[in-house]
Amino acid sequence: MRFLALIAFLAFFSPSQPLAAGMSDATAECLECHGTLAPGMVSSWEKSRHARTSPEEGLKKPEIERRISAKDVPMGLAKNTVGCAECHTLNPDKHSDTFEHNGYQVHTVITPEDCATCHPVEVKQYGQNLMSQAYGNLMKNSLYQDLMLSINGVQFFQEGKTKFKAPAPETNADSCLSCHGTVVEVKGFDERDTEMGAMEFPVLSGWPNEGVGRINPDGSKGSCSSCHTWHRFSIEMARKPHTCSQCHKGPDVPIYKVYQVSKHGNIYAAMGKTWDFEPVPWTVGKDFTAPTCAVCHVSLVVKEEGEVVAERTHQMNNRLPWRIFGLIYAHAHPKSPDTSVIKNKAGLPLPTELSGDPASEYLIDNQEQQNRRKVLQKVCRACHTQQWVEGHWARFENTLKVSNEMTLTATDLLVQAWDQGAAHGLAQNDSIFNEAIEKKWMEQWLFFANSTRMSSAMLGTDYGVFDNGRWYMAKNIQEIHDWLRMMLAVKSDTSRDAK
Amino acid sequence: MRFLALIAFLAFFSPSQPLAAGMSDATAECLECHGTLAPGMVSSWEKSRHARTSPEEGLKKPEIERRISAKDVPMGLAKNTVGCAECHTLNPDKHSDTFEHNGYQVHTVITPEDCATCHPVEVKQYGQNLMSQAYGNLMKNSLYQDLMLSINGVQFFQEGKTKFKAPAPETNADSCLSCHGTVVEVKGFDERDTEMGAMEFPVLSGWPNEGVGRINPDGSKGSCSSCHTWHRFSIEMARKPHTCSQCHKGPDVPIYKVYQVSKHGNIYAAMGKTWDFEPVPWTVGKDFTAPTCAVCHVSLVVKEEGEVVAERTHQMNNRLPWRIFGLIYAHAHPKSPDTSVIKNKAGLPLPTELSGDPASEYLIDNQEQQNRRKVLQKVCRACHTQQWVEGHWARFENTLKVSNEMTLTATDLLVQAWDQGAAHGLAQNDSIFNEAIEKKWMEQWLFFANSTRMSSAMLGTDYGVFDNGRWYMAKNIQEIHDWLRMMLAVKSDTSRDAK
Amino acid sequence: MRFLALIAFLAFFSPSQPLAAGMSDATAECLECHGTLAPGMVSSWEKSRHARTSPEEGLKKPEIERRISAKDVPMGLAKNTVGCAECHTLNPDKHSDTFEHNGYQVHTVITPEDCATCHPVEVKQYGQNLMSQAYGNLMKNSLYQDLMLSINGVQFFQEGKTKFKAPAPETNADSCLSCHGTVVEVKGFDERDTEMGAMEFPVLSGWPNEGVGRINPDGSKGSCSSCHTWHRFSIEMARKPHTCSQCHKGPDVPIYKVYQVSKHGNIYAAMGKTWDFEPVPWTVGKDFTAPTCAVCHVSLVVKEEGEVVAERTHQMNNRLPWRIFGLIYAHAHPKSPDTSVIKNKAGLPLPTELSGDPASEYLIDNQEQQNRRKVLQKVCRACHTQQWVEGHWARFENTLKVSNEMTLTATDLLVQAWDQGAAHGLAQNDSIFNEAIEKKWMEQWLFFANSTRMSSAMLGTDYGVFDNGRWYMAKNIQEIHDWLRMMLAVKSDTSRDAK
Repeated sequence: MRFLALIAFLAFFSPSQPLAAGMSDATAECLECHGTLAPGMVSSWEKSRHARTSPEEGLKKPEIERRISAKDVPMGLAKNTVGCAECHTLNPDKHSDTFEHNGYQVHTVITPEDCATCHPVEVKQYGQNLMSQAYGNLMKNSLYQDLMLSINGVQFFQEGKTKFKAPAPETNADSCLSCHGTVVEVKGFDERDTEMGAMEFPVLSGWPNEGVGRINPDGSKGSCSSCHTWHRFSIEMARKPHTCSQCHKGPDVPIYKVYQVSKHGNIYAAMGKTWDFEPVPWTVGKDFTAPTCAVCHVSLVVKEEGEVVAERTHQMNNRLPWRIFGLIYAHAHPKSPDTSVIKNKAGLPLPTELSGDPASEYLIDNQEQQNRRKVLQKVCRACHTQQWVEGHWARFENTLKVSNEMTLTATDLLVQAWDQGAAHGLAQNDSIFNEAIEKKWMEQWLFFANSTRMSSAMLGTDYGVFDNGRWYMAKNIQEIHDWLRMMLAVKSDTSRDAK
Repeated sequence: MRFLALIAFLAFFSPSQPLAAGMSDATAECLECHGTLAPGMVSSWEKSRHARTSPEEGLKKPEIERRISAKDVPMGLAKNTVGCAECHTLNPDKHSDTFEHNGYQVHTVITPEDCATCHPVEVKQYGQNLMSQAYGNLMKNSLYQDLMLSINGVQFFQEGKTKFKAPAPETNADSCLSCHGTVVEVKGFDERDTEMGAMEFPVLSGWPNEGVGRINPDGSKGSCSSCHTWHRFSIEMARKPHTCSQCHKGPDVPIYKVYQVSKHGNIYAAMGKTWDFEPVPWTVGKDFTAPTCAVCHVSLVVKEEGEVVAERTHQMNNRLPWRIFGLIYAHAHPKSPDTSVIKNKAGLPLPTELSGDPASEYLIDNQEQQNRRKVLQKVCRACHTQQWVEGHWARFENTLKVSNEMTLTATDLLVQAWDQGAAHGLAQNDSIFNEAIEKKWMEQWLFFANSTRMSSAMLGTDYGVFDNGRWYMAKNIQEIHDWLRMMLAVKSDTSRDAK
Repeated sequence: MRFLALIAFLAFFSPSQPLAAGMSDATAECLECHGTLAPGMVSSWEKSRHARTSPEEGLKKPEIERRISAKDVPMGLAKNTVGCAECHTLNPDKHSDTFEHNGYQVHTVITPEDCATCHPVEVKQYGQNLMSQAYGNLMKNSLYQDLMLSINGVQFFQEGKTKFKAPAPETNADSCLSCHGTVVEVKGFDERDTEMGAMEFPVLSGWPNEGVGRINPDGSKGSCSSCHTWHRFSIEMARKPHTCSQCHKGPDVPIYKVYQVSKHGNIYAAMGKTWDFEPVPWTVGKDFTAPTCAVCHVSLVVKEEGEVVAERTHQMNNRLPWRIFGLIYAHAHPKSPDTSVIKNKAGLPLPTELSGDPASEYLIDNQEQQNRRKVLQKVCRACHTQQWVEGHWARFENTLKVSNEMTLTATDLLVQAWDQGAAHGLAQNDSIFNEAIEKKWMEQWLFFANSTRMSSAMLGTDYGVFDNGRWYMAKNIQEIHDWLRMMLAVKSDTSRDAK
């Protein structure tokens, strides 16, 4: 039946219409089995642009309308639509996960380097995106390793004390690395009984995973399908804010939640059904009347008469002067996407001191911040006046300053707790993340300062007052204060049971 | 005007087209008044399949396409569409809420037993669903009764102590029983002035209510309209995830929230507008390209060439090996949907000991778990490879283990608090839910372990790290630890004021 | 190109069709530049009813279908569509922000008084809405000023104590005043280099802002575009619940969140795509089958045969007997929308005593409550039976009572803390909002009682049990209780460091 559908699909291209590209024989062969085995996967692809267009056709479009950034494409790939075989048999020698499968050299994991065959500019830009380094930035930073242990480690209670056991790899893959990316390596081969008889397959570590910084079996980093959901790779989906919400909704990075209560998000929710999410380039006013995440941070946006409002970027931070989440203080963006190289004056792998002073040599300078500010503000100006934009940014940058000040106050209280022995910190060579009071301090920046900044950046003010915003910044400092008083009183009574 | 619309409605069926079923005279009579009194209710019905189709027509469909599971339907009901009178005058003798109304024996409350006239298989399956027992499972479990008192009870402050007053019936109906179901009984009769003159109506307790375990005036349990929203009973609505969110969104069962940040939820949000939610059976790939709640847990799902991926079930737990929320520890599903029969070795009405050991005689065995695992995994396999599915399940079951271990640690700390007199528990013959520290312990499992498990089960990892997930599991243990230290110090000072 | 589009737009009106109104010459002149500068803004307007209809045409409609409430409209405005110039050059003498711009007397800020030219009834009603007074009700209430300081103030740690610095104006504008409204005044003039050469513009304080109680440069209060989003002013958007979520989603007023988990919200989410949000009047059953916020609280709702279910109101509280959020206790609505006039017996600017007793002389009486109850219940009755509605309201009003009782218990504990010196309150002439324990008390009413009431009012019971509901009301009292015990013990040890 599926096979009949394929015939019908091919028959559809009658001589009276210009000959459209067809799928390769290899892809047709894949579909003979996989179309029946996993119809959900295959039908997504059938609905994709990949299934309707060949790279050659894509290259014929005017440059500004192209969805393909290669100047040309290898001969064997140019004329057919982009099907199973085109991607899953690409670069077989680079892929350590390549295996023999019914006469083909196949790999399961599609990587940015595979995608770069047709989309090299985007992959290169993405290499400058912090996200592409998300695995190493987390796993090669000793402080963050300690942080992961304090969250994912299994705690147990023994001799009146709580202790930590290192988390299982499955736990990390199921939490932090789900977004940051796992290491996908071949760990051996396994023969399985399949519906088509016994077959051998590579056994992959860290699989499944679509984390943005995934370490791939060909040595590349990232997963395009984090945002360009397989196997449809719909630009509509990538441009809608739900995609970003997958990794940006929790209290640490509440971007989607803030967007929802912003006027922009409200317009999208109420009126977005009439927008056109498909065109390249994407025309402000005509295709959409309020931004989604992609408009401000990624897409090639133009005005109807052709002026480019923003060039397409997959680097993203080139539209961002400030890094406002994930670290203790807001600060200028790091120069290199590989942040594991950063050391502050105190020797910690952090872009600021514990006092908030920036580790400037690793961060972009004022001039570069100003350049990035202007690029982003040009997007704002497509709908708003200069005064509107400047007023908004003045508030936003005031909020960065205030949220940093509030974090410093919480830090001062924690330092006092360490100094007076109410908690164990750096001086005691102990984790700064594992005790209750340290976790309260972390929430001050990781949840509350972050949320307040986000709400300010994206005009979702409801979230910046009570919903993890200023209310909690203020309350948390008072709670740390009272905890310290109580713990110091307790300490004078009894000896502290160290962890 | 409504009446004219009815005439137009009837006139629509001209002789040139095959004669469609019409409404009964009795229903037409109902509509004469109620169409004007409550047009919102009536127009929902007018848009329903019930208003367009007779049972006889429904029975003519090929078996796999049927929305009606009766082999045949009582003569008097077969030929007309399913209108007001068809349901609200059904089984008058069984209904203690039957009353005389303009010459008809009418009842307000429609019950699963009424629906079983045409849908007996679904009603029977639902009787094996935990939900159908939701009232008794909560109200006939002494521990849960104490839990309800600790949440819904009115606290007051007297002589330096906080005390509890039992909640009003309205409070319970407005909270727990809203989802679990109320007891709907006739409490008397009341004469009212209506727009049609004075009329007498039964006075119902616990009304309105659409809880899944509602105790009905005919003795049956449940309310089909919990999910099949009256009076449209749209299968589209039941298949969309918003329906489930009504009872599954809070921190105790954050299913909808997790779904939203999962890739599945993102695909639904961005692309679901083009899916077809109406067909029976429901074809993966063709009708939808990512699951909603119903795909994995309820619906009859097929492949395009006809293979059945999953049989329709209203039992639901027959696709579920584990029970991952609502109790202290994750455990194998109970054998009987009536969980009020369970007693652990300690004599508590719980499916595990306080240490997490399962009360195995009441729970399904490994073999049955494996059967259920396979049924659910077959749905996964319609879009994913075997390795993908196995990798996902290995993480999920690791998460069950780890979240249970973390709950045990919190329990150990609480037991220590009880043992040392910092709180009052079972040994003191006191509630285990009423003190601050006990509530923190409850959050460890009821909110944080549950949320972490849900996020793992449904791939909404953002929710499993910071948003009520592992962050809170880890932090909560440390907070309980510090509270215990402080309270023991205070205790040595002053005598505890018992509650 | 934009200019060509305008010509095409005008050419569209050929003689063969009835002559539709066109834009004024002045508006055409605005668009020559602004169409290119800010196409997002302009294209929203182009899609608006304002761009298609003249006031004269609007006045020709039957009264019940009118979107314009003026009896007639000034001559110069009647015949053209409502474009840039029509609003932005209106009432130049009243606007202190008027400036000369290419030969026109223009102002940036459009105010309710401007809108009243065509929509006077709505503006007058809105003047009776609490929202129109939202700025003064917050800023002229000494207690709320202290509350704002305690949330927005910058805390710092000095000599072992936490201290507060007053917040910057940008902080207030970015948080509370974002919804409550800023004061927009001309602070001077500024010459800027624009794409059209050097030009002078007024410098506005508090800009941008669309808060509901904004103080405008013409002395009027409010911003119609809070809900009627510029420049499309779509009634569809105002009628959808996302609009309200912008200020009503946080834990203090979780209206949208509760709606989402209510059956009404579920029906909207699943089936609302087929509803018609444009018609005036709005017909229950025909245009929609479940309420959005606007149905119950604002819109002109009718039955299909013409009966008016609810008159349009922009006062909103005339459908509301109770004020259930924002204050310590639920209470009858205040008589005047200007609540800064209220003083309770203790001399505090609150509508109740700290004990919950109402400051009755400032509040509507039972009779007026009953009138308002009936108005709102008539909307319920368009879909529900009388017994349904009465059962629901009995639960709701029980929840008001219980949530008030729980708040009183928390207050009793706080008073004890003040009396025993564990915290500093009114008697010590200290803020009642700045300490950790006071913030816990505030959450009792501002978050937990509010959320519980909302969930009850709007049938989103999932939110009223665990998600900031009764669970937290119960737990918070126990936590305050334990905190008090610990702090009193600490106090006996060491002297309290005052803030």
